Amino acid sequence: MLDVLPPDSIGLVEPKFHTFDSPIALDCGRILPRYKLIYETYGNLNKESSNAILVCHALSSDHHAAGYHTLQDKKPGWWETCIGPGKPIDTNRFFVVSPNNLGGCKGSTGPTSINPDTNKPYGPDFPIVTVHDWVKTQARLGDILGISQWAAVIGGSLGGMQALQWAIDYPKQLRHCVVIAAAPRLTAQNIAFNEVARQAILNDPEFYAGHYYQHNAIPRQGLMLARMLGHITYLSDTAMRKKFGRDLREGKINFGFDVEFQVESYLRYQGMSFVDRFDANTYLLMTKALDYFDPAYKFDDNLAKALAQVYAKFLVISFTSDWRFSPARSREIVKALLANKKLVSYAEIKAHDGHDAFLMPIQKYLQTFKMYMQQIEL
Amino acid sequence: MLDVLPPDSIGLVEPKFHTFDSPIALDCGRILPRYKLIYETYGNLNKESSNAILVCHALSSDHHAAGYHTLQDKKPGWWETCIGPGKPIDTNRFFVVSPNNLGGCKGSTGPTSINPDTNKPYGPDFPIVTVHDWVKTQARLGDILGISQWAAVIGGSLGGMQALQWAIDYPKQLRHCVVIAAAPRLTAQNIAFNEVARQAILNDPEFYAGHYYQHNAIPRQGLMLARMLGHITYLSDTAMRKKFGRDLREGKINFGFDVEFQVESYLRYQGMSFVDRFDANTYLLMTKALDYFDPAYKFDDNLAKALAQVYAKFLVISFTSDWRFSPARSREIVKALLANKKLVSYAEIKAHDGHDAFLMPIQKYLQTFKMYMQQIEL
Repeated sequence: MLDVLPPDSIGLVEPKFHTFDSPIALDCGRILPRYKLIYETYGNLNKESSNAILVCHALSSDHHAAGYHTLQDKKPGWWETCIGPGKPIDTNRFFVVSPNNLGGCKGSTGPTSINPDTNKPYGPDFPIVTVHDWVKTQARLGDILGISQWAAVIGGSLGGMQALQWAIDYPKQLRHCVVIAAAPRLTAQNIAFNEVARQAILNDPEFYAGHYYQHNAIPRQGLMLARMLGHITYLSDTAMRKKFGRDLREGKINFGFDVEFQVESYLRYQGMSFVDRFDANTYLLMTKALDYFDPAYKFDDNLAKALAQVYAKFLVISFTSDWRFSPARSREIVKALLANKKLVSYAEIKAHDGHDAFLMPIQKYLQTFKMYMQQIEL
Repeated sequence: MLDVLPPDSIGLVEPKFHTFDSPIALDCGRILPRYKLIYETYGNLNKESSNAILVCHALSSDHHAAGYHTLQDKKPGWWETCIGPGKPIDTNRFFVVSPNNLGGCKGSTGPTSINPDTNKPYGPDFPIVTVHDWVKTQARLGDILGISQWAAVIGGSLGGMQALQWAIDYPKQLRHCVVIAAAPRLTAQNIAFNEVARQAILNDPEFYAGHYYQHNAIPRQGLMLARMLGHITYLSDTAMRKKFGRDLREGKINFGFDVEFQVESYLRYQGMSFVDRFDANTYLLMTKALDYFDPAYKFDDNLAKALAQVYAKFLVISFTSDWRFSPARSREIVKALLANKKLVSYAEIKAHDGHDAFLMPIQKYLQTFKMYMQQIEL
């Protein structure tokens, strides 16, 4: 429990909702007649509505990006390192909007929501959504909030992919695009990891073809395995070595299959706690959105062509030890922008933390990010 | 079906057995009163018994390293690229011994064998074995075959770890040690991958705490997931890209969870076919043997100390794109040997195939390996 809120935190925040009553046509060919988005905002929108920042979240995150919901919260929002007064996304200067994506499980319409056609949870009948779909729903949210142009759209990992898609789909509606620890599309290896995670969930006997809610069940093992596997790809080999090495929990080998090495204990804990806070159907949807993301696909696999019409200035950041989306993947984006003579700043941050580095308080990273944000004109 | 056997193959081979009736004390503290090893031999032992080569297998391999069991075989043994007349391990010159490890599921005593105490399969009651235990059983097999000193002990991956352990445990009983695509011990990341694989098996409802044989069940999903995950770590990102890229099986996205990308199809096939040929309890044992392998542990974590007494000359080979056991891990072995002024040849082979490269017909690799083997005096 917090006695006093940290002075560099935005402090207590409260989620907001908006229900969209006009239907939305999705990439998969289906139409959602209505849907709700949950979101948070930090800071104040200025008179000119020129200081709005859209923050897009990654695979298993949500709208709660900064601050605390109550003084009893154990943790602040997921990007507390980057959002707040005096931080890179400075809430003294910017008005930050952070939605939970469509298909999510934290308040926006998704598989756990009631399908008005059946009065039961959508479950596996919820349509598969794409990054392009998300960007469309986020644009509608901007309309509702009176934001005709974002000062910047920003995201890390899958969030960075949304920022990139924004620059392609609504070029004039953002002045800056910040793409952190992302890639222009997944490799076969990335897809392979997602596929193992999906198979773990889909084949869990408690999954009931996605209708586990009605069976009062949770595909606990499948979701746990998916999360354990995810965690391996979020951390670098070096980060894992530094964190755990070959340390044994009881100081000795027991010749059994219970937890022996600290890294096993960490992974099991991460896996088990994820089950209590995330929905398996949403996890499946999110991995598919990742797999499908490929803005160059419609442009003869030519990313430069896909980015030819972007208007935003870019900041692209990668981390040396990120092997999920390595610096080489970020450089693909940078090269495609340069091929179009677009303005792009690129920083490759030396960090041992792997993909998770984008969430970490790494000084050079925060400095670079902050300096870029400071020069954004309002 | 083969009309004619390839001329550079050892041809038709037949497994042999030996039952060891003297008890063996294992690292875990348990004693096996008797056990059987299945093995194959290729070539002929010379009069002086000076041309014997021991080949040690990796995680999911077995004693069938070269040649064919019948003309109907679809595939030869797992190391046909390296073992045969005129090949690196030249059967015109050497007498090759290739056993299935204790705890295996291909004929050596293991979890699927009948426990004489209960007249039921050992299942989860089979003791956890270590690389050190394996080397001990292999030394006994050498005794039976009249081999007091191996010309070389050779292995790739987990097999390379056995070769390294041989040089430490029985220094005078091998003249050469060939360690390919191995590491002196696993990293936290390596252990993490093994742990996810184990959790997939252990939590499969068809696992029945390891007693699935009695329930006429197989922990199919768990073993499939373990194998899918394994395969990702065996291939490099580049190899996967070259093999599959983002190719779609039906040329289009279907917005569903059936196979869409070729890489998904490949992984599912690999996973499913593995279930038909491998035992889950054995898989669990093998991953533990990997995790526990750490010859430096007893020597203050100092690998050079662990290798101070080795007598064999070494060939160490690594592959540039192997991220399971990267070249850096092989160089740890090389450095520790050099610190002791031991004779070691080291080759870092440029290859895109990832960890699996040690099984592949890569010309530079086969040439290097062959040249080293040719200079072994008999």
